[in-house]
Amino acid sequence: MTQTTVEKSPVSLLGLGAMGTALARTWLAAGHPLTVWNRTPARTTLLAAHGAEVADSAAEAVAAHALVVVCLLDDASVEEALAGTDLAGRDLVNLTTCTPAQARDRAEWAHERGARYLDGGIMAVPPMIGVPAAGGYVFYSGSRELFDRHQETLAVPAGTVYVGRDAGFAALHDMALLSAMYGMFAGAAHAFALIRKEDIDPVSLAPLLADWLVAMAPAVHRTAERLRTGDYTQGVVSGLAMQVAGTPAFLSTAEEQGVSPELIRPYFELMRRRLAEGGGEEDLTGVIDLLVR
Amino acid sequence: MTQTTVEKSPVSLLGLGAMGTALARTWLAAGHPLTVWNRTPARTTLLAAHGAEVADSAAEAVAAHALVVVCLLDDASVEEALAGTDLAGRDLVNLTTCTPAQARDRAEWAHERGARYLDGGIMAVPPMIGVPAAGGYVFYSGSRELFDRHQETLAVPAGTVYVGRDAGFAALHDMALLSAMYGMFAGAAHAFALIRKEDIDPVSLAPLLADWLVAMAPAVHRTAERLRTGDYTQGVVSGLAMQVAGTPAFLSTAEEQGVSPELIRPYFELMRRRLAEGGGEEDLTGVIDLLVR
Repeated sequence: MTQTTVEKSPVSLLGLGAMGTALARTWLAAGHPLTVWNRTPARTTLLAAHGAEVADSAAEAVAAHALVVVCLLDDASVEEALAGTDLAGRDLVNLTTCTPAQARDRAEWAHERGARYLDGGIMAVPPMIGVPAAGGYVFYSGSRELFDRHQETLAVPAGTVYVGRDAGFAALHDMALLSAMYGMFAGAAHAFALIRKEDIDPVSLAPLLADWLVAMAPAVHRTAERLRTGDYTQGVVSGLAMQVAGTPAFLSTAEEQGVSPELIRPYFELMRRRLAEGGGEEDLTGVIDLLVR
Repeated sequence: MTQTTVEKSPVSLLGLGAMGTALARTWLAAGHPLTVWNRTPARTTLLAAHGAEVADSAAEAVAAHALVVVCLLDDASVEEALAGTDLAGRDLVNLTTCTPAQARDRAEWAHERGARYLDGGIMAVPPMIGVPAAGGYVFYSGSRELFDRHQETLAVPAGTVYVGRDAGFAALHDMALLSAMYGMFAGAAHAFALIRKEDIDPVSLAPLLADWLVAMAPAVHRTAERLRTGDYTQGVVSGLAMQVAGTPAFLSTAEEQGVSPELIRPYFELMRRRLAEGGGEEDLTGVIDLLVR
């Protein structure tokens, strides 16, 4: 954790929303020279007081240091902010939330302007930045050279996980994990809705629910193995036919409790479709095939 | 774990599907006298070889011991199997999967016939029965007296969690946790579908996905606290407005990757509805209100 070099790599940072500000603070706290730019300058004041250089324009910020980190609202904001800047020879790290295709296009756009490009997908909320114990990290993809050169600097605000040279892979991993999280939250929302009209304290349900989800999460390892081998039936304990047979009880329970089944029905529908296509001896992996066009 | 009494409580068990057979084996292995009955007698042979008494009829099994455990296909099978039996004075434990309303009705039905009633919802698959390290357990609700009297016997095949005198609460907890699990599986299915056409090994995604889900599962504690207090806004880090603003990227990513958004869209739609109703400063808890009619 201690650095033996006295000089910390300087960073130019464009974008001081909640996330950009959190990044700026951790780099400043770690002793990195930092030049910041934000479209509306008000957010720069406090950072300046903590030692940040404030650039008057995005072009000035980009010109200040070789490592240019961008954390803006969306991909259109990135294009707009960088439009009048000279990216030649820069190491551009784009932490702006975008789709895989946007990241790939932005990488090409950056290459055309003579920059190296690394895309990042942040798996953390701002309060987790600079707090290693919080477990936040950033997916990176694109230039391996850029990643290796700046890995130490990039690791200051959060952990780093490099997922490939394809610039779209960071966004893809980000979207995959967050989609799965929303699915889990949707399931938990249904669970809490089910007990809403009963004399059951949600705070007493929560530990049972959390423990159950934690216990079931490792099932994704088995799913991954099945996807790799293409064998969805070997060693199946609770087959699709049996699970589909159980789904009416879930829908009836929702009905009894006055809860809309809209969050659980789509998955059950796919289970039923897969069963109808002959997947009764499989586990649930075949549902994934139905999602991909 | 060691019993000081030599005599283990005898059990009558009706229903020898995969789950019933697993229960039977653990009670036999633990030295409990066991009388079994199954609609089709073939499944009794092996258990008889291990010391089980085989009853010729459900009535004979019910008459054999005070503790009568039923583990059948569905609630209709329970009514059918017990129709000609004398339940007076029996301690009836129903582990058959059913809805909360069915469990409540079955409790009343049992009381009318002079039996005590305990309903169970099994949070395990058969291979987890009798394997404490597997972490399986059974939710119980209904007669507290019955539960206390037989808790030691009931704890032989799996852990026991008593959730209330309302006979429907075991099924309700069971349905709540399994619904949440299916939501998580739906989210994970979407995640795996997103990478399907890319050069990304699902086995390399799995640990990232599992760790992320495990890290996010404790969010249900915060949700429960908010449901208890009714305050969905205090201390919100990532507000609903910001999260809804992020949803188009998820849908575009699905589109780019050729993945149907059917498993993630319903939750996003509810987020949008809640935002439209003025919940922009809230976290995601308000979605639960929209589910309950």
